[in-house]
Amino acid sequence: MNTFGRLLRVHLLGESHGPVVGVLLDGCPAGLPLAPEDLEADLARRRAGAPGTTARREADRPRVLSGLHQGRTTGAPLLIAFDNGDVDSADYAGLEHTPRPGHADLAARQKYAGCADPRGGGHFSGRLTVGLVAAGVLAKRLLGPARVEARLLEAGGRPDAEAAAAEAAAAGDSAGGLIECRVSGLPAGLGEPFFDPVEGLLAHALFALGGVRGIEFGAGFASARMRGSECNDPILDPAGRTATNHAGGVNGGLTNGNPLVFRLAVKPTSSIALPQRTVDVRSGQLVELRVPGRHDACHALRLPVVVEAVTALVLADLTLVQRGLAHGAWT
Amino acid sequence: MNTFGRLLRVHLLGESHGPVVGVLLDGCPAGLPLAPEDLEADLARRRAGAPGTTARREADRPRVLSGLHQGRTTGAPLLIAFDNGDVDSADYAGLEHTPRPGHADLAARQKYAGCADPRGGGHFSGRLTVGLVAAGVLAKRLLGPARVEARLLEAGGRPDAEAAAAEAAAAGDSAGGLIECRVSGLPAGLGEPFFDPVEGLLAHALFALGGVRGIEFGAGFASARMRGSECNDPILDPAGRTATNHAGGVNGGLTNGNPLVFRLAVKPTSSIALPQRTVDVRSGQLVELRVPGRHDACHALRLPVVVEAVTALVLADLTLVQRGLAHGAWT
Amino acid sequence: MNTFGRLLRVHLLGESHGPVVGVLLDGCPAGLPLAPEDLEADLARRRAGAPGTTARREADRPRVLSGLHQGRTTGAPLLIAFDNGDVDSADYAGLEHTPRPGHADLAARQKYAGCADPRGGGHFSGRLTVGLVAAGVLAKRLLGPARVEARLLEAGGRPDAEAAAAEAAAAGDSAGGLIECRVSGLPAGLGEPFFDPVEGLLAHALFALGGVRGIEFGAGFASARMRGSECNDPILDPAGRTATNHAGGVNGGLTNGNPLVFRLAVKPTSSIALPQRTVDVRSGQLVELRVPGRHDACHALRLPVVVEAVTALVLADLTLVQRGLAHGAWT
Amino acid sequence: MNTFGRLLRVHLLGESHGPVVGVLLDGCPAGLPLAPEDLEADLARRRAGAPGTTARREADRPRVLSGLHQGRTTGAPLLIAFDNGDVDSADYAGLEHTPRPGHADLAARQKYAGCADPRGGGHFSGRLTVGLVAAGVLAKRLLGPARVEARLLEAGGRPDAEAAAAEAAAAGDSAGGLIECRVSGLPAGLGEPFFDPVEGLLAHALFALGGVRGIEFGAGFASARMRGSECNDPILDPAGRTATNHAGGVNGGLTNGNPLVFRLAVKPTSSIALPQRTVDVRSGQLVELRVPGRHDACHALRLPVVVEAVTALVLADLTLVQRGLAHGAWT
Repeated sequence: MNTFGRLLRVHLLGESHGPVVGVLLDGCPAGLPLAPEDLEADLARRRAGAPGTTARREADRPRVLSGLHQGRTTGAPLLIAFDNGDVDSADYAGLEHTPRPGHADLAARQKYAGCADPRGGGHFSGRLTVGLVAAGVLAKRLLGPARVEARLLEAGGRPDAEAAAAEAAAAGDSAGGLIECRVSGLPAGLGEPFFDPVEGLLAHALFALGGVRGIEFGAGFASARMRGSECNDPILDPAGRTATNHAGGVNGGLTNGNPLVFRLAVKPTSSIALPQRTVDVRSGQLVELRVPGRHDACHALRLPVVVEAVTALVLADLTLVQRGLAHGAWT
Repeated sequence: MNTFGRLLRVHLLGESHGPVVGVLLDGCPAGLPLAPEDLEADLARRRAGAPGTTARREADRPRVLSGLHQGRTTGAPLLIAFDNGDVDSADYAGLEHTPRPGHADLAARQKYAGCADPRGGGHFSGRLTVGLVAAGVLAKRLLGPARVEARLLEAGGRPDAEAAAAEAAAAGDSAGGLIECRVSGLPAGLGEPFFDPVEGLLAHALFALGGVRGIEFGAGFASARMRGSECNDPILDPAGRTATNHAGGVNGGLTNGNPLVFRLAVKPTSSIALPQRTVDVRSGQLVELRVPGRHDACHALRLPVVVEAVTALVLADLTLVQRGLAHGAWT
Repeated sequence: MNTFGRLLRVHLLGESHGPVVGVLLDGCPAGLPLAPEDLEADLARRRAGAPGTTARREADRPRVLSGLHQGRTTGAPLLIAFDNGDVDSADYAGLEHTPRPGHADLAARQKYAGCADPRGGGHFSGRLTVGLVAAGVLAKRLLGPARVEARLLEAGGRPDAEAAAAEAAAAGDSAGGLIECRVSGLPAGLGEPFFDPVEGLLAHALFALGGVRGIEFGAGFASARMRGSECNDPILDPAGRTATNHAGGVNGGLTNGNPLVFRLAVKPTSSIALPQRTVDVRSGQLVELRVPGRHDACHALRLPVVVEAVTALVLADLTLVQRGLAHGAWT
Repeated sequence: MNTFGRLLRVHLLGESHGPVVGVLLDGCPAGLPLAPEDLEADLARRRAGAPGTTARREADRPRVLSGLHQGRTTGAPLLIAFDNGDVDSADYAGLEHTPRPGHADLAARQKYAGCADPRGGGHFSGRLTVGLVAAGVLAKRLLGPARVEARLLEAGGRPDAEAAAAEAAAAGDSAGGLIECRVSGLPAGLGEPFFDPVEGLLAHALFALGGVRGIEFGAGFASARMRGSECNDPILDPAGRTATNHAGGVNGGLTNGNPLVFRLAVKPTSSIALPQRTVDVRSGQLVELRVPGRHDACHALRLPVVVEAVTALVLADLTLVQRGLAHGAWT
């Protein structure tokens, strides 16, 4: 089910080693200005290059194949495709029968009866997030004055994230990371009870990103150990500004006008050079596996801009829904 | 948007102090046996009574108003309603203009232009979860041999949860809690990439529960500090059994045949007897508020069975979807 | 799948001889005034009583069980229930093994493995349309100045519809009918290409009404025999007013500002007193069946107000969607 | 809303004169064999060439850009793109301010605030149906032994359809047509009450095809003039075979095991060479318009294979849903 959203709807497609990856963005209002170069800044943030990121180099040149006319969105769905260039499937040839620990290889084999494309993770690859970043640029514009900013707080438990990633890489290993995202400038009242609270929609979409293992809003897990008198945020004015922000900007599933704040736990990249234990699915025998190929040592390094994109897509959709359902719709 | 699910779809309705709360469960296969008394065990687990839970007493007598004939589901939607009996709206009369910290009062006022039912939290009330518990009983049956079990790990940071809750209550305060849910006996391959991974659907539905502030799967936030060689679970056999379960039973968004494990952070109940700071929305003046009414001092105490219900609903839906999409559908 | 709509969503529930039938209307904007008596005029139009309609008499007293507070919608889902009073299931006891021609009895038996509620047609009964009529009253209000009007053009091929129905009834038989619906005052631009054109959504929802066998917009089937020079409507002004209205108010799936016009073919009521041929599903033997019970002789007589309700629900949903997606959503 | 379907979901994209048109088919089970040449037969049936069809010549070479590996579907979404080759936008340059009668030009201008791509009808073009035909080939395979066959019954009211179309073309005019579709070999029980009956889903999807103005099932509009004793189909055996098929294979929204039969009314192509009256939207003055460009004189000639494709997509989706919801899902 490669679709997310109610009015603004994003569909992802493609495989790591197929001809293209891309995004189909439907429900984008007509008239939004977009030049292909507008996508470049966010695409560059996602691109590999820093220590600890994969050696695979992709130009990530977006081709807008539908939905754009004379520099503006038309109201028809936008297809933005990225050719897959720097592909080397040879690395995956030996992996067919020895599922990689931490990956979906074995579960996908069972689910799809052996028919899923295994090359480079296929449709499960982090490569697909390039389409999300492109769609996110449009979504950020739909949010008007609101600002979405995600950053890596730490990798491997250390604030010097790039160094930690490089160290892990040098050891043939990988490192996890912690990402924080803040959105300021949102109006109060976004979110649709009972089942579409802001947290629920964001969590749903963000867990689609490979490696995300947890999410918490505001005080998050720390709030489980608080008392109410400590956790509740005193209200300062009729607009809803609060003295503290333990709620992370959400009450009862609705934005409350304070900054929206959440954190994501990202596990270490599953592909590592060190030997690992797995099984040969033909014989059932235990084997030692060394995963070849080119991988990020710390997947979390490249993820903040993807997190921003997903966050913007969710919030832009809620914004459109709120416009549709607002009081006075019948006058 | 009071609906969740793709084939098995749950709709919640009602308000805390309205005539009823209830659940409409659509897409339940025909022929599933159900007697009203089958709901009793789980409803009893949710019911108040222990120290630290609300003084409001509800009989929670389910009335199955459609979708059942001769003790079996018919394929038509099931409406299960619960009358609201022990209602005292007088407590809420004074709160109209002074939004309660930690609640959705102010955000809902802004969203719904002052028209939301404020009595007892209205449609935002934890009272609505009674319908989820009822639907969850059916969903558990749809899961066949799989077992869903949630329990409170701690309240206020202490394993003696009931005592911690009672202490908080005695102080006019409230306590948060940590809940763990485990599901054993699931097949591998549930979950629908890209946007409907198991974690994403569960998180989406679970954040609909009031007070949930965080969710983590398997090693969760701890995995952000791990290395890949430590975090990856060695695979032991072709069925996918692993030596450790840091993944919490999910790889790439798909169940992998190991137990599904996740934890939820629940904040302290927002309604407390201690005075709190808020604003009078008419005058803009800061005021001191004492929240009247009957409340749980530790909302998390009653939540495990609700968490089980939501989990079962999500997994049962994924099970039906997997049946529909399975290899060989065309033969 | 008992749900229809994207933002304004209607869910139907109940069975003909169960405790209740009803409607759950979600996504209705907050603040819309509604008194239970506002439903009465349309409910009365649907109610039986004229010659050719069923002898079953239902009070059709709507109970609004959620989503309404102080006479206004709250933004939470509205549950409107109708108790089933005048029920006599004895008539159906003998029909269990002899499926009625024209009804879903046999197909439902196969689909639901014999578990569907057979009494009075169960969930397939025309009784369920009472909920649609109630929801339609709200939808009509959401349409603002637009007027939705449906009427019976003929029954049994005759303009004197009630007489034709009475004649058919006297013969132990039933009659079909033709209904026309006109909506004036709609803005141009409602409808969402490619898959949600106005005609498509209306047809989808209207075929849910028992007995509808065809639908045509504007010149409809006659246009299949026209030439383009005859069928195209000359455009008279920049607002889109046309000299003729062969399009029935829709071009390319979008309303064009002219009156929306469509017609529905309704087959004769399937339950008739005359003997019919069917099979005993146990023995496979052909048998002669006389359908007992109380039925409309011309189902189409009571359908216009239901058609209006469904039409209003579809158009109100499209109106909310258009508000959400309108140009300038990002400013 | 360019998406249709619940489990098997088809998304359309592209514009008539943009770089590509295409289809994204999600929810297709893994393992279905597909070679690009398998698409050729149906694509050829849709392609122009006969008298009365457009002079635009497109190679219609499908590029399967995702979701296929080693000749089988992978379970990931299939993107099938067709480059637009024979494009001449010059014809449309003069039409910007004079909306063509019968087209969506003016309504789209109002809906999309002048930002829709006007070239060749943009996203409203019949060119998009090429993607439907490609997806339909896969859908037909999912239907197993069932056969879907559509044919043109008449054009301009005459059985010699190609001659009628050629005559209309010679007169600078166009002709409408009548299409019949029959599906044999379907199981009983497809369709999902209340809102997803077979007729409703088919009508919804088929009205997305440009020019469709009416649809009727079985006896259709004729049944409005029948009596029940004439219209009801006598049941012959426990499998549901009937002596007549006035129902067109559907009772109560469910397939009944008899052939599914429906007819579509298609209006004459709106673009004609003869002069037409319209308005200049800048000045409001009435003008005479001659529509340039290359067009089918009888759109209906090329539509039967598209109707088959849409029909197969709807029925394949219902088949997957029925698999998911079938009795015994819980065992």
